[in-house]
Amino acid sequence: MESGTSLASTPSVLPYYVFFSQLLGLTVVAMTGAWLGLYRGGTAWEGAQQFNVHPLCMVVGMVFLQGDALLVYRVFRKEAKRTTKVLHGLLHIFAFIIALVGLVAVFDYHKKKGYADLYSLHSWCGLLVFVLYFVQWLMGFSFFLFPGASSSLRNRYRPQHVFFGATIFVLSVGTALLGLKEALLFKLGVKYSTFQPEGVLANVLGLLLVCFGVVVLYVLAQADWKRPPQAEEQALSMDFKRLTEGDSPSSQ
Amino acid sequence: MESGTSLASTPSVLPYYVFFSQLLGLTVVAMTGAWLGLYRGGTAWEGAQQFNVHPLCMVVGMVFLQGDALLVYRVFRKEAKRTTKVLHGLLHIFAFIIALVGLVAVFDYHKKKGYADLYSLHSWCGLLVFVLYFVQWLMGFSFFLFPGASSSLRNRYRPQHVFFGATIFVLSVGTALLGLKEALLFKLGVKYSTFQPEGVLANVLGLLLVCFGVVVLYVLAQADWKRPPQAEEQALSMDFKRLTEGDSPSSQ
Repeated sequence: MESGTSLASTPSVLPYYVFFSQLLGLTVVAMTGAWLGLYRGGTAWEGAQQFNVHPLCMVVGMVFLQGDALLVYRVFRKEAKRTTKVLHGLLHIFAFIIALVGLVAVFDYHKKKGYADLYSLHSWCGLLVFVLYFVQWLMGFSFFLFPGASSSLRNRYRPQHVFFGATIFVLSVGTALLGLKEALLFKLGVKYSTFQPEGVLANVLGLLLVCFGVVVLYVLAQADWKRPPQAEEQALSMDFKRLTEGDSPSSQ
Repeated sequence: MESGTSLASTPSVLPYYVFFSQLLGLTVVAMTGAWLGLYRGGTAWEGAQQFNVHPLCMVVGMVFLQGDALLVYRVFRKEAKRTTKVLHGLLHIFAFIIALVGLVAVFDYHKKKGYADLYSLHSWCGLLVFVLYFVQWLMGFSFFLFPGASSSLRNRYRPQHVFFGATIFVLSVGTALLGLKEALLFKLGVKYSTFQPEGVLANVLGLLLVCFGVVVLYVLAQADWKRPPQAEEQALSMDFKRLTEGDSPSSQ
């Protein structure tokens, strides 16, 4: 029998899942570095290595930091809502800036080499995800950090923000897998089928990216693990309920 | 102001989303057929066309039918729970059998050609997803259709079944994208960057696969759109609540 989890306390197994997610996330980042270091000559802002800045930055920003930003509300359960919210927004800003550096790296590299841009499914998905991520951040900021939005507007937008946040995260992991596959096939070609060490390492990296994504989403999906409302939020919510119930006719 | 959705009625916008999901799903299937017909010589069980049975079957089974099986509880809202459940299970069986034909096609094709099996990230993800799908089906059958499981066991397993069902669906879409990318890069190589018609068509197909996945998950994620419990289920659930509340001490 699992231990019951009252709203006030931290669910007993949650810290293990969070620890596991961080172990996976850090392994993914380290393994991306190892792949680029061992088989692609490392990273630099000049020469052939400039391309390698792209996968490293995208994995750190769009996968690891974005995933961690989603977990903030499950990890910081007793801090003031505003503190948690600011941390969530800040982690997303860091993720966005690091991903932007990764994007500049690949476009600059393509330009120097005279390669075409935005022809592949990876690049189409990537551009879509990055634009959605930026729009999601702006919307999140406008609704939840900027003081203008009313509680009712926030409550109506919140489920959309959560759904699209999780969707953008999943699309980011998927886009990373497409990029990994592209990098492998362009370099290894038919040699990929001979179980080259680079191919096997990159396949394992791909599966670990999937695992990180699944664990983060699993933590988010558990209804019992949601951040409990703090005393002052509960009071506000009660006030709001009373107001709206007084406001609207009891419609069918 | 959106129209309020009482539990008893079908939410007013749900049919539009379901229609849109079907439009996307059928477009994806038709476009996969068009891609294989226009650029890969169509499908057959012999010769080079045998490979093409693989993408077609996987898209029909693991993407379209699997997605539709997930939507069954949102679409059939007023039918008896058992009918809906059997339909959900049947759609998954059809999906599984069609996907199995697709798998046999690619393994048989590889064998005839003397190609290596299971070396790519696509194949690793695919094998993982297919095994998970089979396990999920067996678990679903044992808990929800086989009459042995108690209500309490069913209620505890249900959220896991829903989470892993959605996860396996997302992984199926992701694996399809990896396979599409592989097929493009093996055939087009560097010509992919010259915006060949096949590359552009396949990229659009990839984006539509993503859109189908997102719309299905959006419908599933809306709390208001969940299937309302029928009268007999509500009575059963009340009985169960009374039983368990009488059973357990009021633990902290």
